[in-house]
Amino acid sequence: MPEIEEMTEIEIEYEALLTQLRENDIDGFREDFLDLHTYEQSEFYSDLEEADRDLLYEVLSPEEVSMFFDSLEIDDDEAYDELFETMDARYAAEMIGRMQYDNAADILNKLPKSKVTTFLALMDRADAAEIRSLLNYEEDTAGGIMTTEFVSLSSLMTVREAMRHLKDVAQDSETIYYVFIVDEKRKLVGIMSLRELIVADDDEYIGDIMNERVVSVFVSDDQEEVAQIMRDYDFLALPVLDYQEHLVGIITADDIMDVIDEEASEDYSRLAGMSETEKTSDTSWETAKKRLPWLVGLTFMGMITAGMLSFFEDTLAQVVLLGAFIPLIAGMAGNTGTQSLAVVVRGIATGEVDASSKVKLVFREVGSGLITGLTCGTLIYLIILVMYQEPTLGMIVAFSLFVAMTVATFIGTLIPMFMNRIGIDPAVASGPFITTGNDIVSLMIYFTLANIFMAALL
Amino acid sequence: MPEIEEMTEIEIEYEALLTQLRENDIDGFREDFLDLHTYEQSEFYSDLEEADRDLLYEVLSPEEVSMFFDSLEIDDDEAYDELFETMDARYAAEMIGRMQYDNAADILNKLPKSKVTTFLALMDRADAAEIRSLLNYEEDTAGGIMTTEFVSLSSLMTVREAMRHLKDVAQDSETIYYVFIVDEKRKLVGIMSLRELIVADDDEYIGDIMNERVVSVFVSDDQEEVAQIMRDYDFLALPVLDYQEHLVGIITADDIMDVIDEEASEDYSRLAGMSETEKTSDTSWETAKKRLPWLVGLTFMGMITAGMLSFFEDTLAQVVLLGAFIPLIAGMAGNTGTQSLAVVVRGIATGEVDASSKVKLVFREVGSGLITGLTCGTLIYLIILVMYQEPTLGMIVAFSLFVAMTVATFIGTLIPMFMNRIGIDPAVASGPFITTGNDIVSLMIYFTLANIFMAALL
Repeated sequence: MPEIEEMTEIEIEYEALLTQLRENDIDGFREDFLDLHTYEQSEFYSDLEEADRDLLYEVLSPEEVSMFFDSLEIDDDEAYDELFETMDARYAAEMIGRMQYDNAADILNKLPKSKVTTFLALMDRADAAEIRSLLNYEEDTAGGIMTTEFVSLSSLMTVREAMRHLKDVAQDSETIYYVFIVDEKRKLVGIMSLRELIVADDDEYIGDIMNERVVSVFVSDDQEEVAQIMRDYDFLALPVLDYQEHLVGIITADDIMDVIDEEASEDYSRLAGMSETEKTSDTSWETAKKRLPWLVGLTFMGMITAGMLSFFEDTLAQVVLLGAFIPLIAGMAGNTGTQSLAVVVRGIATGEVDASSKVKLVFREVGSGLITGLTCGTLIYLIILVMYQEPTLGMIVAFSLFVAMTVATFIGTLIPMFMNRIGIDPAVASGPFITTGNDIVSLMIYFTLANIFMAALL
Repeated sequence: MPEIEEMTEIEIEYEALLTQLRENDIDGFREDFLDLHTYEQSEFYSDLEEADRDLLYEVLSPEEVSMFFDSLEIDDDEAYDELFETMDARYAAEMIGRMQYDNAADILNKLPKSKVTTFLALMDRADAAEIRSLLNYEEDTAGGIMTTEFVSLSSLMTVREAMRHLKDVAQDSETIYYVFIVDEKRKLVGIMSLRELIVADDDEYIGDIMNERVVSVFVSDDQEEVAQIMRDYDFLALPVLDYQEHLVGIITADDIMDVIDEEASEDYSRLAGMSETEKTSDTSWETAKKRLPWLVGLTFMGMITAGMLSFFEDTLAQVVLLGAFIPLIAGMAGNTGTQSLAVVVRGIATGEVDASSKVKLVFREVGSGLITGLTCGTLIYLIILVMYQEPTLGMIVAFSLFVAMTVATFIGTLIPMFMNRIGIDPAVASGPFITTGNDIVSLMIYFTLANIFMAALL
């Protein structure tokens, strides 16, 4: 449906729901609300004011609330804390316990320690144990995004037994579209899709028809790597192993869609020199507060450039026209450097750039810097010759542009590679810092050349 | 498995396969090759040289080749054409006909018209008709990424009949995890997940238990919008309707993962001022050729800046130190402008920024520009006072920085919004162009202010 119309339609429904809730039309509200998709329920819920939320908890069971909490997306960690301020602790504990375990762990990770302890203590013991096991993993790893609610079977079952088992556990599993076959020591020995199960003959043994070539990840593997594997193989679910190769969880496609989006947005924000915590709903103050650390840092870097240029004050005083080309040279070096940076950052993120292709890529980038630098340099020489009739100035600007663009590709390629080597996410080598760094280097080249050829300019 | 080890392991397997293929060990090769995951088969295939590919076609059936062609990912359209140069036309036609229809259409879209006509003519008639129907849709729309291989049921079937039907059609459907219920006019009336089918009682009627609230998209909807809906709702498959609301196809999660990645990479490339056709495997020449149009454009824009500055030559000659702060002011305006640009581009892409929130966002951004401009301006004033003991110069630089940063947020916000309004993808308002535009505006402000206060500087 076209987005505009759909939005309006659903907004009218939300309004009607709010009226029912406030006027205490419990049956009407429950009927209409529970008829919504859980994503829509979560959207309705996250727009509610505190008083209305409290009303909601009175008319919905913890289990009903847990359904849409699984879909709830709130970027701001503090906001989660506020949600639980007015929710009864017992109610909250039961609600969280009934969420999908991976989502429950994600929420608990955002709450203060004291609350986590309280909720886990009040929760059903089995649920608490499952969730606690997930809390131990780093947020950005396979362990941090996996869920423990998967279907595991024995290889000694027949297809018929497997299907019956699936029917029983379907409600408690995040996905039943892949089943995982484990041996008596919980080691993963095979995998089958539900499609294969459905097509198979009822009396066959799982062990005879399962796929024994299983692609899996370890709990500590980075989520970006996991996303890459799922994308490449088009998996809907991927098994996660601990270091004894026990099957401890699975990662499902819906979680991975979020990861792909998250990682790409992160890289994008960094290229623009922003914090990834920025939200479009932030106020001017909040936005300014998040951007200021970057901008203040860049102001200081800008002062380094200014300090260096004031060192060349005499040169500039003698040939004032030199100043007119400062933005051009600094800007072009910044642009080519950012291009190289972007290639390396995305290449590392998608796994296209690895140890073997690194050296090749440096040569490729510098080669492209030489070619583009030569082209733009020649162009600028001709323009200056025609517009200003200053062949020497033209030579200096052109040669500086050529050298600066080449060096910029080198810097733009090497810095993110170096950061990756020493274990820092190369995306933090943000665009603006590379640009400002290239300002300094390129202008140094420009004024040094100008100084050397000064005699010819006067 | 840790990536490094796994890669090595699989590379050894690929090597062994290549030897089998070249030494004509047909049975050995077939056994090992067909045991690979189709993604791995496609990886092996895309690294092959032409002569080896020809050998491969001799030992594999068109159907076997079609399996991994579904997973094949080649960014370069010309490379697809080359693949079919040596493949027998009849073989190629049968192979493409046996691919998933959406993937087959994607490949045909990349081939020259004459080849498409030949292949469609040689193909099984039913397959050709299905594929031809998909060729009509724009590549970036729901129609362009959907497949026609879905499972549709009548609401009058029982669960038992539905499961039996599923068993029959499982092989020919891209997914059986969602089934779509249509009336006698092919209108979509309901949807069920396989999980719901499995849990349901065998004798129930589909019409009684299906979900009638169906979220769907139209064939012409943009793929980015479709991705957003699938992400929000965590769907594994989404129905696609024509304008008579007939069900014509479905979009599956694996296609959407590619879309999310593709769209994010596109925005990212544009922010860095690059063409999205760039590949890490390009040579220096190819890279330079793709980047030169941008860089030459930016050189000309840089000449505008230089021309404007040479207009202020006298001012610069009188107070040479003014030149030292050119990179700082231009750079900071560029940075803040890029931040605003990035917020708007991503906000529009993810749907967070719509008509109602646009005005608010402009005020938010300009507000943040005022605050950060005031802070960085004050900072720079103090630094210049301490380092150069030049209060007037400090005032001019500080005030220019303040105005330039505020104006830059305004420009950075408005330009992508304006582009979106007139129907151009705002992501083409690339970072470098906004930056260079802001160079000109900010330096104009700087030198105008300097001119006004010139008397005080001398």
